[in-house]
Amino acid sequence: MTFGLDPRLAADTHEVGDFALCRVLLMNDSRYPWLILVPRRADLSEIHDLSAEERTLLIEEATGAGAALKSLTGAKKINTAALGNMVAQLHCHVVARFVGDDAWPGPVWGSGRAVPYEDEAAARLVADLRRALEGLI
Amino acid sequence: MTFGLDPRLAADTHEVGDFALCRVLLMNDSRYPWLILVPRRADLSEIHDLSAEERTLLIEEATGAGAALKSLTGAKKINTAALGNMVAQLHCHVVARFVGDDAWPGPVWGSGRAVPYEDEAAARLVADLRRALEGLI
Repeated sequence: MTFGLDPRLAADTHEVGDFALCRVLLMNDSRYPWLILVPRRADLSEIHDLSAEERTLLIEEATGAGAALKSLTGAKKINTAALGNMVAQLHCHVVARFVGDDAWPGPVWGSGRAVPYEDEAAARLVADLRRALEGLI
Repeated sequence: MTFGLDPRLAADTHEVGDFALCRVLLMNDSRYPWLILVPRRADLSEIHDLSAEERTLLIEEATGAGAALKSLTGAKKINTAALGNMVAQLHCHVVARFVGDDAWPGPVWGSGRAVPYEDEAAARLVADLRRALEGLI
């Protein structure tokens, strides 16, 4: 089977690009700068479904995304998580958090309703992210 | 500076043992089988504060803990996360989730109040975990 993006992940995000292992998506929720990394492999739901080599790629890509996001946004803290209780396809959240943001200091998942980006703001942020992630994408 | 465990992490957990990189703790909340892995390095708060070699260890240890926890408990899903909005010391949650558990399908953080283990139940689970994690501890 070949890789296909879960339709719910596709509907909730803007595409940023591809790392060596993961597709990089921007969550369409302007409350938090929030990336989702999806390993481009079929039929994965747990991190232990990846090979050891792929896991090293995953953590390096999540770390690079987190460091770039922190430096781009001046965030207080990066939250990195693979949950998958709602969408089974293995995916890793990398979220920039700020003191006083809508969910601070709680988790972003399940907190309130997403506030979609205006089209122009999304396009601008995707362009900024591509520049910030240069060398990884 | 040498490694010291954050007092809040120490207060909320039972010690399971040490992996090559991380101290392994059992969260004292009987609602979820829940491990916390703390890299035994001083002054870390983000995953990108670790070296690449340490990050590979971290993901291998978190993966081993998750696979062991899933196999020991029959969980539906493992949730793996490094948040750190409340406790700055870098630590990684590995939580066994079940359909219908107290927070399902939402995140465990910030959901209700912890239900501490009875002493005997905690001791039994720690012993089971040490057996399940054999080869890693």
